[in-house]
Amino acid sequence: MHDTICAPSTPAGGAIGIIRVSGPQSIEFADRFFTSPFRQPLATAKGQTLHFGTLTDADGNIIDEVLLSLFRAPHSYTGEDAIEISCHGSRFIMNAIMERLIQLGCRQAQPGEYTKRAFLNGKIDLSQAEAVADLIASNSRASHRTAMSQLRGHFSSELSQLREHLLKLTSLLELELDFSEHEDLEFADRSELLHLAQSISDHISQLIRSFRTGQAIKQGIPVAIVGKTNVGKSTLLNQLLHDERAIVSDIHGTTRDVIEDTTDINGITFRFIDTAGIRQTTDTVESLGIERTYKKIGEASIILWVIDEQPEPKDIAEIQRLTEEKSLIIVQNKIDKDNHRFSVTTLSHSVPYIPISAKQCSGISELESAIYSAAHLDNWQENTTIITHARHYEALLRAKESLSRVINGLQNQLYSDLLAEDLRITLSHLGDITGGTITPNETLQNIFKNFCVGK
Amino acid sequence: MHDTICAPSTPAGGAIGIIRVSGPQSIEFADRFFTSPFRQPLATAKGQTLHFGTLTDADGNIIDEVLLSLFRAPHSYTGEDAIEISCHGSRFIMNAIMERLIQLGCRQAQPGEYTKRAFLNGKIDLSQAEAVADLIASNSRASHRTAMSQLRGHFSSELSQLREHLLKLTSLLELELDFSEHEDLEFADRSELLHLAQSISDHISQLIRSFRTGQAIKQGIPVAIVGKTNVGKSTLLNQLLHDERAIVSDIHGTTRDVIEDTTDINGITFRFIDTAGIRQTTDTVESLGIERTYKKIGEASIILWVIDEQPEPKDIAEIQRLTEEKSLIIVQNKIDKDNHRFSVTTLSHSVPYIPISAKQCSGISELESAIYSAAHLDNWQENTTIITHARHYEALLRAKESLSRVINGLQNQLYSDLLAEDLRITLSHLGDITGGTITPNETLQNIFKNFCVGK
Repeated sequence: MHDTICAPSTPAGGAIGIIRVSGPQSIEFADRFFTSPFRQPLATAKGQTLHFGTLTDADGNIIDEVLLSLFRAPHSYTGEDAIEISCHGSRFIMNAIMERLIQLGCRQAQPGEYTKRAFLNGKIDLSQAEAVADLIASNSRASHRTAMSQLRGHFSSELSQLREHLLKLTSLLELELDFSEHEDLEFADRSELLHLAQSISDHISQLIRSFRTGQAIKQGIPVAIVGKTNVGKSTLLNQLLHDERAIVSDIHGTTRDVIEDTTDINGITFRFIDTAGIRQTTDTVESLGIERTYKKIGEASIILWVIDEQPEPKDIAEIQRLTEEKSLIIVQNKIDKDNHRFSVTTLSHSVPYIPISAKQCSGISELESAIYSAAHLDNWQENTTIITHARHYEALLRAKESLSRVINGLQNQLYSDLLAEDLRITLSHLGDITGGTITPNETLQNIFKNFCVGK
Repeated sequence: MHDTICAPSTPAGGAIGIIRVSGPQSIEFADRFFTSPFRQPLATAKGQTLHFGTLTDADGNIIDEVLLSLFRAPHSYTGEDAIEISCHGSRFIMNAIMERLIQLGCRQAQPGEYTKRAFLNGKIDLSQAEAVADLIASNSRASHRTAMSQLRGHFSSELSQLREHLLKLTSLLELELDFSEHEDLEFADRSELLHLAQSISDHISQLIRSFRTGQAIKQGIPVAIVGKTNVGKSTLLNQLLHDERAIVSDIHGTTRDVIEDTTDINGITFRFIDTAGIRQTTDTVESLGIERTYKKIGEASIILWVIDEQPEPKDIAEIQRLTEEKSLIIVQNKIDKDNHRFSVTTLSHSVPYIPISAKQCSGISELESAIYSAAHLDNWQENTTIITHARHYEALLRAKESLSRVINGLQNQLYSDLLAEDLRITLSHLGDITGGTITPNETLQNIFKNFCVGK
């Protein structure tokens, strides 16, 4: 924590490149290779100021004309003195600046090290730190909204509310203990305590349940399109994938991140798996019988079964077998040619049956609604907290487990002092999420290793 | 020029994303969706200041926590009021900010439009503007150095010196004209005038000659490695391509820009064409006889012919034919096994013959020196001006042409007033390079269309 770190925070190849420097010697190091036209040293500059000038290499050659942002502790992202260098986005220049900084005594930052320092310096808590990485990775309205909510501390304040209630419960139990000592009265009326514990547990359960939605929001929901050849799967796929070409994608260097074959429905990302493409590479094409298609279907949580004629009983049975644990939607395509509804009565009545014409683009919005419903995201409301991290999920599960022991103890008239330990454990599990208590180094390493460099 | 433009200036996918806004309404637009914790409007802020706060979308939802850099005209890159938004590098966020700016009345900037405005507002001249794009594209010490020198105005000041000399020549001719009117004396002693014109012409010629080097620096010098199979071409290639992995290339999103198979020798980029790879895809492998290899050899300006045994006369003849207009280097590999020099006497004596062992890495630095010499970059010195743009090259050729008419006229005792027009043309061609006089819109379009967005 006492050294000064540096890292590029943007990929090379754009108009501008950013290199971040943070730590006690940031300003001193910058002064040693930065020259402003006014020859004023950065050491005398105030925080939150911008400085135009040139950077030079060890031989005195100009590396670039740059703009420096100067921050003074604690008013920076990390809470330390910091410099952000805005240079031309050439790899050569960014490398030359990095080399110079390292020569001067900077250490190249590890992934996520800036955010880690922000956490260790008390600028943000651990769940907010995790939200930073989520925010950078966000690619849909829902994933952006949940990450932003977490970064803004909404989850943290919900947790702190839960902890407050638990502390109230603890003090009520201590009161009962005091009371029992004095009055020789074994147990007070515990209904209030039980009610409080139960409501905390319900709240935790609600957060736990949201994890399924959180995962769907974060990773996108895999949807497989299956059906015989020439049934119109590719045309349907093209209809579902609207051209959502990003404005940003015009920039050189960005297209590689675009994940093909995803689309957003109501702000949620659905990943479409086109089994049509898989089929073309095989020679023997059976109704549904291709190994790779099976595997892809296995990965999907929603199956669109596209048909354009009365399916045979064996196909229906096959589909039923394949989609046992999944959401199935039957899509009758080509209704412009034949809008007679086929019989699939052996399937459950609740399976949605959507007539469409992919070619004429009719029925597509009905299909989208059906896909969204099939994702079972009923508890996804933009203002409720959604758990998106396995680490939080596990901590909440453990908290619920220890709290349920407290509830059992209350119901079974256990002594207050026997319940105190489980209450303490519950509090500690909730505390782990925000990292309020001392966080083991291993946990920090796990959290920050998945960050990108420069954040 | 009176509208306000916006564009992302970094690719999405890094820790940080930069969006640039420039134009008279920059600060007003930013104020309409930016909120700082101190609720101070940007309108009251000084130039060159940094502001932390949040950006909100049209529905009031927070898009991101950002850092704004505020610039006031003329103290900005474009010379206009400008805002630079530093946000999280998510494509979703960068798109949301761009959408909001466009909603508020910004126009999405065209490639190079910021630099174009900087030129039109007199912040930089046209050759400096071109250097900006070169600098961003620079990937070797030499290309960086020439671009930086041009950006810093070294070429511009050399041109302005030339123009000064031409103006001196013009006024001397006018003086002669005045003198002749008064004194009835037809011609003054023109040796001084001739000397001045010749020295200007020499200077222009020197710049013209540097274009060949400039192109080599900018595009890299293509080198083909040819020879029979199993002669050690791939091992040699691996030795020549040192691991020059960039520090920056660790960042997500950068590797796609890495051009494989290039290496720098003395700051100059050499592009190695591995004909070994081409061979593997064909079935019939003849000594040198593959069409695609021929084509690749045609593109190269230096040929490394790798041999490990006495070549047959027909192979020597073939090589001679192939490398008629190129630099040939004979590389005798595997000298650890057999260091007996083979006879290639039918080839010119000046063809370098370098014995190496690619496997044992001996002779490689001698080979590198030979490759560098074969590039004929004798006039590449770090402090001389190198022409890198065809546009400049053409303007200089035209300037030289009209100046040679002046020199002819002086020698042939033409009247001063007949020379004045050609002098004016020479001045105008030199002026075109920096765009000092009015630059046609078409020229500007051609220059800026190759810029990246956001610069």
